[in-house]
Amino acid sequence: MQAPAEVTPGYSLQPRLRVFAGPDMVLGWGKIMLLKLVQETGSIAEAARQMDISYNHAWTLIKLMNKSFIEPLVVTERGGPGKGGAQVTEMGQRVLELYQEMTDECLKATRKQWRKMQSLMQVSEE
Amino acid sequence: MQAPAEVTPGYSLQPRLRVFAGPDMVLGWGKIMLLKLVQETGSIAEAARQMDISYNHAWTLIKLMNKSFIEPLVVTERGGPGKGGAQVTEMGQRVLELYQEMTDECLKATRKQWRKMQSLMQVSEE
Repeated sequence: MQAPAEVTPGYSLQPRLRVFAGPDMVLGWGKIMLLKLVQETGSIAEAARQMDISYNHAWTLIKLMNKSFIEPLVVTERGGPGKGGAQVTEMGQRVLELYQEMTDECLKATRKQWRKMQSLMQVSEE
Repeated sequence: MQAPAEVTPGYSLQPRLRVFAGPDMVLGWGKIMLLKLVQETGSIAEAARQMDISYNHAWTLIKLMNKSFIEPLVVTERGGPGKGGAQVTEMGQRVLELYQEMTDECLKATRKQWRKMQSLMQVSEE
C-alpha cells in the first residue's frame, strides 16, 4: 500500500486520524482508503488490487468496520464475501464525510503551531 | 515497535500527525516516540531497544530529523553516532512541545464530529 504521491518541494502536514473501539482500530488511513476505493470501483476485489492487499485482507477490514457501526458501511450484492459487486452504504458515506470533516478541522486548528514549526525547519541541502 | 497500550473498553480517537519535507516524513509517531525516549533515557541505544528497532535505524531517523530543522533536535556527547550519551536539545524540546500542542488542538477541534461518529458506533458483540 503506497502513501499518496507527495511531490511538493516544501513542507506539508498530514493528519491521520485513528478510531479505536477498545483495542481494535476500526478506522484509520488504510480503511478509509479502502472505503473510498470500494465507492469508486464498486468492487472489493478491485479496491484490494489497487491497494496491493489480498481480497481476504480487504474483506477482513470491511467486516471489522461493518460490525463496529450500527449499520454496515459496505454491502455486497450477495450479502457475503463473494467477488460480485459491493457498495458503500449511506452509513458508510456518512462515516467517510465525518472522517474528512475531522481531518479538515484538525488541519485548520493546528495552523498556528504548524506555521511556527515550519519557521524552525529547513530544506535539506542534500 | 508497539502502539501505546489501549485498554479502554470504549471508543477513542488518536490523531497521528505526519510532517513532510518534500517526500521525506521528518516527523511522525515513531520519530516523536524516539525523541521522547532519548529525552527520558539519555541514550539512543536504550531508546532504540525500548522501541525494538536497531541502533542504526534509530540513528538514521535522528539524522533525518536533525537535518530537517535549523538546529539539531538531538546531540550526542561525541558529536557522532557513538553509543555514548545523547540529549534532546532546546530545539528538540520546542518541536516536541509544538507537536503535542498540535495533537491537542486537533483533538479539541474534532470533538463535535467525533461525538457524532461515536453515536453511529456500537460495541462489538464478539
